[in-house]
Formats: sequence, structure tokens, C-alpha cells
Amino acid sequence: MSDLPKRVDIHEEGPREGFQIEAGPISTADKVRFCEALAETGLHEVQCVSFVDARRVPGMADAMEVAQTIRQRPDVHYTGIALNLRGYERAVESPLHITGGIQMSASNTFSMHNTNKDNAQTLHEQRRQMAFFRERGIPVESAIVMTAFGCNFEGAIDPETVRDCVGELLKIADEFGVTLDRVRLADTVGWASPAQVQRVVGMVREKWPDLRLGLHLHDTRGTGMANALMGLQMGIESFDSSCAGLGGCPFAGHKGAAGNICTEDLVFMCHEMGIETGVDLDALIECARMAEDIVGHQLPGKIMHGGSLSKFRNGGHA
Amino acid sequence: MSDLPKRVDIHEEGPREGFQIEAGPISTADKVRFCEALAETGLHEVQCVSFVDARRVPGMADAMEVAQTIRQRPDVHYTGIALNLRGYERAVESPLHITGGIQMSASNTFSMHNTNKDNAQTLHEQRRQMAFFRERGIPVESAIVMTAFGCNFEGAIDPETVRDCVGELLKIADEFGVTLDRVRLADTVGWASPAQVQRVVGMVREKWPDLRLGLHLHDTRGTGMANALMGLQMGIESFDSSCAGLGGCPFAGHKGAAGNICTEDLVFMCHEMGIETGVDLDALIECARMAEDIVGHQLPGKIMHGGSLSKFRNGGHA
Repeated sequence: MSDLPKRVDIHEEGPREGFQIEAGPISTADKVRFCEALAETGLHEVQCVSFVDARRVPGMADAMEVAQTIRQRPDVHYTGIALNLRGYERAVESPLHITGGIQMSASNTFSMHNTNKDNAQTLHEQRRQMAFFRERGIPVESAIVMTAFGCNFEGAIDPETVRDCVGELLKIADEFGVTLDRVRLADTVGWASPAQVQRVVGMVREKWPDLRLGLHLHDTRGTGMANALMGLQMGIESFDSSCAGLGGCPFAGHKGAAGNICTEDLVFMCHEMGIETGVDLDALIECARMAEDIVGHQLPGKIMHGGSLSKFRNGGHA
Repeated sequence: MSDLPKRVDIHEEGPREGFQIEAGPISTADKVRFCEALAETGLHEVQCVSFVDARRVPGMADAMEVAQTIRQRPDVHYTGIALNLRGYERAVESPLHITGGIQMSASNTFSMHNTNKDNAQTLHEQRRQMAFFRERGIPVESAIVMTAFGCNFEGAIDPETVRDCVGELLKIADEFGVTLDRVRLADTVGWASPAQVQRVVGMVREKWPDLRLGLHLHDTRGTGMANALMGLQMGIESFDSSCAGLGGCPFAGHKGAAGNICTEDLVFMCHEMGIETGVDLDALIECARMAEDIVGHQLPGKIMHGGSLSKFRNGGHA
């Protein structure tokens, strides 16, 4: 495991994922205190809301109010996402740290189903958005390739296809004079295995050895943490994850299906392997338990139920 | 990942784990049909019951009846375990495939709390049991080192300590002229990380390069599947696991804490990495759903909720 990074950056997506998919109404106050608690754990980034159509995503109807109510620490990025220009128009009016992104899916069919645009139309749209970001002075930090490890419509995705998608996104960035901080590879519908992570990351890395890659992993089929381990072994130092495993998979056809990998489980694994995260694990576990209280049902995170090891290590006992 | 095995053997422990820890009464008929269904999936071994004191483990009160009712396929080992001589006396009266085992904990304090015996007394007891196995003609196949990756009482466990435990168990086997099929290293209380798996397996392997090792992993803190991946990368080809993730961790102090790693999630990961298991994944997922029906609440397994990929691969879609 000689390629293990010394430190990883974790991009917390739990609030946005959770508020988006949970059926029960969650109060604005609960959303705010959860975001604020996460920001006290040492996480550098907390994705708080998405600026989407409230008719499609009722849980995001109060996105602007949440954004405006959070008391921000100066050392944390409180972010929000948008999926189109209309969303970005609202997002930039909020006090959140809004950055632009470039995205496409490695599966043309997934794009058609998800956004009603094929890949050519998606790339055209990305260029329109880049023009908007430039015009508004919105920094562009990352790009993302969705369904990079498989797709429910197209099945297995060739690593070469993912590599070509990365190439398309880098080309757009280049056209706008932007140097991306990282390119994220997303297992949007939960197809990845460690072997596939190794193949896809290897294929992209071979072409752009100095490009910083991030992984956005789901745990739909139980391999999420193993995929993260393979990512670490490939030297990946940037991960997206959700506190308590908040979220789910709307593509899995079962409301109990798991979503993003769980932040505190990932933090635990990193720490146990000598990899720094800058996160206070016990504080993060308390956030996960807060999330469970807020949503009112058990969440998929494991260490929040198993308990951390700190009390045992500090001379305590069972 | 050049050390990946071509094939792994999976020892299914779900029925025993689940019937032992679930609070609600489970009917004998349900226990029997679950064991029978598991045996139809290609698993070679199904651990059905444990012969323990029914006053301490009420869910095992009907162990003998379950054992006697199961209609056995000739190509599957239906096993039962016992923790002491009194248990073995009952076990050998059952129609199950009963084998002897030698066990100790890498933590002396854990042994004291768990069995009221220190390690010296435990080793003495193992020799008494070995004499019993020899007298009754019970084959001895494996040994197990419990708390091999950490202990709630003693904290971190040195890999050297685990190596020495393996040495003690091999010595006992040798005294009785027994060649063990495998030695299992158990993460009894859920402390293992991939780094620790690598260290401990490496330490034992260095001393006995040809000894077949098995891993008994728990997912108490979310690292179970990553630990399994590290095991595969170290060439481990024998795993214990539980269908649907049945079981739990009585040492975690939270009734929702996860137990053994989930068999069908492990099978999925292996298949996706080109490692054979001999198991029909979709049939096993049906067993996991049966388990959830039987216990009446959601179980931790992931792919049983996310769904397998076979329908997508065979030309279907979402």
C-alpha cells in the first residue's frame, strides 16, 4: 500500500443528500443546526443545499432560508449546488460558497433519462454554463463524470469511455482558460467494484498523470468502502461522502437502498490506516446521531452504531 | 492485485448468528426453510445452529429440532457449533456435520470476560476437547484466534501476539496428530482496519507461509468489506459471513450495531473482481430477503436492497 496518501480531503454531502431524499418534512432549524454541527468537526466543506425546483424536490423548498440562516465559520466552505443556469442564478444570491462545475455522464442513455439531453447537448450546455460562470466571476473548481463505473441503462462502462469524457471536460475547461482543481469520478448508480475502480482510475491516470482525481462513491451494493480503499491504494486523496450515510439511491428501485458512502466510517478507516483527515471522529459521530434523530429512523452508517474506539484506547473498557 | 485468489470458499453463518441474536421468537419452521434455501444457492457450508445453554440463548432452544428437520442435500455441509464439551455431547447426537475446533482469544482479558478462563486455562480446555474429539472420532478442521485485530478490554492487539496464538493452536493440533485445514483470524469485536489485516495476516504468513488462513470479519465500524478486500489482496481464500448481514455485535453496546460481513455483498464483490464463489448471487439475495421477512425488520445487507446487476446486464433497464 505504498501509494496511500498522507491526507485526504473529504467533501461532506450529507445535508444536501439527506434533505433531498428524506420523505418526512425536516424543519429549517434542524437543517441549519446539522450543517453548523458538521462545520465544527474539522470538515472543510459542507454541502448544505441544492438550488433545484421545489416542485420536483420539496425538501429543498427552503434552500435559500437554510443558506441564509447558517452561522458560518470562516474556515469552512458551506456550499450549495445547482443543476442548471436557473439554479445557479439563485445560488449566487445566497451567502454560500458557490463554485461552478462541469459535468457529463459516461452513459449517453443515462443523460437522456436524467436530463433529457444527450451527451452532445450536455457538452453544449456545459459551455453555456462556463460562459455564465466567467461572466459572473464564479470560480470553477471541478468537473465530474457521472456513471463512470456502470449504468443501469448501458450496463458496464468501458474505462476508455470514462477517459474520453474526462478529455471532453478538460477541453471545455481549457477553452475557458480554467485549470480544474480536480476531476471527480462518480459511481452514480452503484456499479463500482474495487477492480473497476482500479481500471478506471488507472486508465485516466495513465493519460493525465498529474490530474487530481476525486471519487464520489455509493454503497448501493455494499462495495463502497472497499472501493474507497482501492481509491486510497491508487493514491486518491479526495472523496465525497455523507455523514451517517444520509441519502439513498433513486435508481435502485428500493427505498432502503444505500446512497453515498458514510463520512464517519471513511474517516475511521483513514485514521486507522494512518491517513489524516483533519476531522474529529467522535464529534462527527455525534453529528451522525443528530442526523438520525432528525430524520427519525436508522441510517446506514456503521460506526455511529458500533461506537468509536477512542474510549477503549484511552484506558476504558467495554 | 496479483495475489487475488481465483476462488474463495464462503462459510455461511447467517442462520446461527441471526437465530442467536434476534429478539423476536423465530419459528422452527422458518429456521429450517431459511437453512434449506441457503443450501440451494451453491454455498458448500451452512452453519445452522449452536448447541448452547437455552437459558442463556433462548433462540437456540430448538437447535436439535432444527437440526433434525432440515432436509439435507448431499453436497452441502450443514454445521452446528458448540462452545464446550457439554455442547459437543449434544451436537454429535444431531444429524449435522459436526467438526471439532480449537480456539483461543488473542486477548487474555477478553477470555476472562467471555468464558471466565484465562488463556492458560483456555489452552488446557482445548486439550481436553481435543482428547474428546479423538475419542469420539470427530474430525478437527480448523482453529480460530478471536479478537485478533483488537479488543475492547486490551485495546490494540500486537500482530506478534496473534502469531504466538496461532503457534499455540498449531502446537495443540500437532500434539494430537491433527493437520488443520485452516486457521481463522476473527475480528470478534470489530476493530480491524485494512492496514491491521495486512499486518496481522502478513505476520502469520511470514512464519507459516503454507498455512491456509481464513478471515472472520465483522462490520461493526463500516470497514468489513474493505477488510475483506485487503484479505483477498493478501491471497485469503476462506471467509466467514452472514446472509443479509444477520447477527450483530453484543460487545458494541448498541442493538443496531452490525455483525458479520454480509455474504451476498461479499459474493457480489468477488464476482465483480473475477473471483469465483460457486454461489448463485440472485438466489442468495432471495434468501436475504427471506431473512428480512422472517426477522421482521430491515437487515444491514446492501445488495439485497440495491438489487443485483444481472437484470441490467442481460439487456434490461432501470
